[in-house]
Amino acid sequence: MLRTHHCAQLTKTNLGATVSLAGWVDSVRDHGGIIFVDLRDREGITQVKFDSALRAEAAQLKAESVIGITGKVESRPEAMMNRGIPTGEIEIDATELTVHNISETPPFPLTDAGGDKVNEDLRLTYRYLDLRRPKMRKNLAVRHRAAKSVRDYFDTQGFYEVETPALFKSTPEGAREYLVPSRIHAGQFYALSQSPQQFKQILMVAGVEKYFQLARCFRDEDLRADRQMEFTQVDLEVSFIDREGVYSLLEGMLKKVWKDVLNHDLPTPFPRLAFKDAMNRFGVDKPDTRFGMELADFSDTFKSSGFKVFASTVAAHGSVKAFNAKGLADITQGEIGALEEIAKSLGAKGLAFIKVENGEWKSPIVKFFSETEKAELTKRLNIENGDIVFFAAAPWERACAILGRTRLEAAQLLVKRGKMTLRADQWNFLWVVDFPLMSYDEEKGSYAATHHPFTSPVAEDVPLLDSDPKAVRGQHYDCVLNGMELGGGSIRIHQPALQKKIFEDVLKIPADVVESRFGYMLKAFTYGAPPHGGFAFGLDRMCALLCGTTSIRDVIAFPKTQKAQDLMAQSPTPVTAKQLKELHIQTVIPQQ
Amino acid sequence: MLRTHHCAQLTKTNLGATVSLAGWVDSVRDHGGIIFVDLRDREGITQVKFDSALRAEAAQLKAESVIGITGKVESRPEAMMNRGIPTGEIEIDATELTVHNISETPPFPLTDAGGDKVNEDLRLTYRYLDLRRPKMRKNLAVRHRAAKSVRDYFDTQGFYEVETPALFKSTPEGAREYLVPSRIHAGQFYALSQSPQQFKQILMVAGVEKYFQLARCFRDEDLRADRQMEFTQVDLEVSFIDREGVYSLLEGMLKKVWKDVLNHDLPTPFPRLAFKDAMNRFGVDKPDTRFGMELADFSDTFKSSGFKVFASTVAAHGSVKAFNAKGLADITQGEIGALEEIAKSLGAKGLAFIKVENGEWKSPIVKFFSETEKAELTKRLNIENGDIVFFAAAPWERACAILGRTRLEAAQLLVKRGKMTLRADQWNFLWVVDFPLMSYDEEKGSYAATHHPFTSPVAEDVPLLDSDPKAVRGQHYDCVLNGMELGGGSIRIHQPALQKKIFEDVLKIPADVVESRFGYMLKAFTYGAPPHGGFAFGLDRMCALLCGTTSIRDVIAFPKTQKAQDLMAQSPTPVTAKQLKELHIQTVIPQQ
Repeated sequence: MLRTHHCAQLTKTNLGATVSLAGWVDSVRDHGGIIFVDLRDREGITQVKFDSALRAEAAQLKAESVIGITGKVESRPEAMMNRGIPTGEIEIDATELTVHNISETPPFPLTDAGGDKVNEDLRLTYRYLDLRRPKMRKNLAVRHRAAKSVRDYFDTQGFYEVETPALFKSTPEGAREYLVPSRIHAGQFYALSQSPQQFKQILMVAGVEKYFQLARCFRDEDLRADRQMEFTQVDLEVSFIDREGVYSLLEGMLKKVWKDVLNHDLPTPFPRLAFKDAMNRFGVDKPDTRFGMELADFSDTFKSSGFKVFASTVAAHGSVKAFNAKGLADITQGEIGALEEIAKSLGAKGLAFIKVENGEWKSPIVKFFSETEKAELTKRLNIENGDIVFFAAAPWERACAILGRTRLEAAQLLVKRGKMTLRADQWNFLWVVDFPLMSYDEEKGSYAATHHPFTSPVAEDVPLLDSDPKAVRGQHYDCVLNGMELGGGSIRIHQPALQKKIFEDVLKIPADVVESRFGYMLKAFTYGAPPHGGFAFGLDRMCALLCGTTSIRDVIAFPKTQKAQDLMAQSPTPVTAKQLKELHIQTVIPQQ
Repeated sequence: MLRTHHCAQLTKTNLGATVSLAGWVDSVRDHGGIIFVDLRDREGITQVKFDSALRAEAAQLKAESVIGITGKVESRPEAMMNRGIPTGEIEIDATELTVHNISETPPFPLTDAGGDKVNEDLRLTYRYLDLRRPKMRKNLAVRHRAAKSVRDYFDTQGFYEVETPALFKSTPEGAREYLVPSRIHAGQFYALSQSPQQFKQILMVAGVEKYFQLARCFRDEDLRADRQMEFTQVDLEVSFIDREGVYSLLEGMLKKVWKDVLNHDLPTPFPRLAFKDAMNRFGVDKPDTRFGMELADFSDTFKSSGFKVFASTVAAHGSVKAFNAKGLADITQGEIGALEEIAKSLGAKGLAFIKVENGEWKSPIVKFFSETEKAELTKRLNIENGDIVFFAAAPWERACAILGRTRLEAAQLLVKRGKMTLRADQWNFLWVVDFPLMSYDEEKGSYAATHHPFTSPVAEDVPLLDSDPKAVRGQHYDCVLNGMELGGGSIRIHQPALQKKIFEDVLKIPADVVESRFGYMLKAFTYGAPPHGGFAFGLDRMCALLCGTTSIRDVIAFPKTQKAQDLMAQSPTPVTAKQLKELHIQTVIPQQ
């Protein structure tokens, strides 16, 4: 090895020892003719002193150059001690210097602050420099530790990690997928696996019983801060398990990861919330429960109101809902306008509100309210001076969604004003359960699986599959943290007849399509499929949370841009005619 | 959970306990009106007795059906005890029976022997049944344990596992790659990563210092028993390391894996063999050293021989080599013919040999040999009655290759005769080192990298790059086990100028191609690249060795066939016109 120690290792206990270090030049200082180099490696920094024939050469070193040195560990003069770092009491008096590589001047400062200020495209182009920044280095370390912790946990629990293929078959009805042309089978394609869902269920039929995998998955969807072309999913499936079993398994895993990575004790079990309650109280199926401002239903209150918009909504079986954005009466006209735009994008006609200023309710709609209605609002929403109350009157799900989003936006406005704190390290995990199995598309006149068609109905709801599919609850569960869905899963259907019924009778997928897409699964289920269920959640997103960043690109070593490009290695690219010919395809460039 | 114990858990210590088990019906027996079911899960088998109202239902159970039972743990009658399995002294007197799924009759017996007899295509079509066979289940368990062991080792050694992208850029000059059309960038493509080579070197520039990954890699090459479209590589890279450092790192890893998986203590360090010696002694760069029959060079002996074929070969700077296939004089005419065919396929004109039977040397060429030549052969090859000696006279590398292959074939013939044993669990690891950096293609008149263009030359050979590139040794090393290459690696070039020189001056790659393919790496190296080196080896192949199987398909849950098909899920497939249009491609089906 080209070194005897790393750069965070040497202390006063090593005084007098001859050591070799290697790393990057963090800084060079000339201090009265003596050259001091802060030598940095992955672990830390050690000060190296050049007070000999090496001085001239050392003085030429540029930051980020790579060197190796040999020398003797000495105590620093008292005045030069830096007790803030582990090696701050010593320095190395260098007797040898090897220059491995001189560095050009980096295009941006390799400090946390320096990199944060520049355009992300520049960081991605020079990712090898960006990753030298302390926080990016820490993110890689956290990701390693988190993945190791997940694996250690499942190993201890008797799981096998089983690798499933990335090259799978095309299933065009799902999310958009990446295709891979076959050279051997002209005109045919593989699809890059969007998730190991089918394989993991097959593994249950195979008797593996406890499967997990940190699986690379691929989806050709439009990219955002929390979405990449390829991502890593912690994927698991267990036989002979019920929902309770999955909850405690996952809680155990998250508890271990949070302990191993953050040394934080997560309280378990996590609270549970039925889908309906989540919608009613928070207007969303992934509520951020770090703050209140819950939604309340006033349909009863306003069913005979003088305010006709509300009364007629209730008459049409819609809902009137409201919440109190506590202390946000100082909202600006512009902010209100932005909220209105959002509400409209969700199907609202406008966004009714009441501001309470100087003890007075200010709103064009208040004049239509009766005293009873006002009293009811005041009581249930605890309306005080300085508050603003937002309303939505619409079909139930839409009314919830409008206010759910408004509640989150209002919280951000309160945070901006310093009136609310949303701590990234307050870990409000919860389970959202009892989702409807199916949703009904009024326009198409057909049902769609809320999550996926393998989700098992709640046992007592199975008879409703024929009479009222909308009312059937699925054995699906989501793990939600601070307004984000970390992952989800379900108990699956293991009875071939029921699975076929869901495909053909409820989802109305033509029998030949069922056969070509899922025929092999239905067949597998006839050879002794155990009851089973599982879960999948995004490792990238979990790591982003653990690192306190909102972009998963910060926890992926080499992410693509939102335009799906690798700016460093430069891809995608055109390819040669020979390559295309071998794959039996040609390109069709759209006319500009 | 649907069970309280697994099926290898209950013993006499549990007598009297009420327990629930779940699993597959391994067998059903009617024993004087009482029904006995062997219930099987991943862990083992427990006998369940139905001696109540449940008898009738239990009697109907078919093998491979999935059931759950509840009952009391009882002692078996002495005569029915089976001390060969952990649960052999007890049985469960069932009081409840839940039938989760009735199984059809499997298309082949789910025993080790039963599955081994059927066509592999049938096993792959019903992979979920094939994986229920004890040895396939064990293979999955071994693979999990081996991968975990590798990860534990590198974690302990301070490595970070860093995930690198599967969607990389096309590099058409290497092995054939899979292309992925881009939807967003019409006419452009990603390539599925063939190995993380470039990314891992970039991670060294990024200061990660110790990287590893169990990386999925993709190569569109013709498939064989030890090759799949996608495979898993244990990939690593370390900064500030030399060859000795890599050897001891890898030896430590393999020692741990063999201990964890097989409880076997591998002796370390592994022997080392220079490429030249490997070729001279074994005729191959991945020698099987479990047996002798080494090659010897007789060029000097025969340089003035009366046998003109040998003399003229030496005169033309070729080599005359021979080895003694000890005890194989009883080789048949047909076997000799087969060996000759192989020799010819490697460029030999024929395969000269001497059989020693009844004290007599039998061969058409012996009459040309002088007594001195015969004495030299006898002495150096220890020729005795019953032996057969094979010769090759050709340019050095070809002579080595011909006899290297003949030696392996001869060993197989000896094994067949029971005269030699080649134990799969005799672990003759070794390092093959000092490979030439470049090979010269006489026809093309150009050099090619023996391994890859990033391999660093041995320091003292660098001056030869200009004068005699063929003579330059590379800092490459292969880890070889029993005639197989488990993996390889090298110390890399970290100096941008030297890397550019190799690309442009030695390999003669046009500057614009270097720039478009590797420009970003050369640029990265100008920002402080540390000296670094690494290794990669096939996890699939290692697992096959650990499982004692010769086919990597036996250690991959869902392998493709040699025709690159998934017989279970049925892929590849044609796709829709809409999908192709979105990806800006169309298919071009070759005329039949």
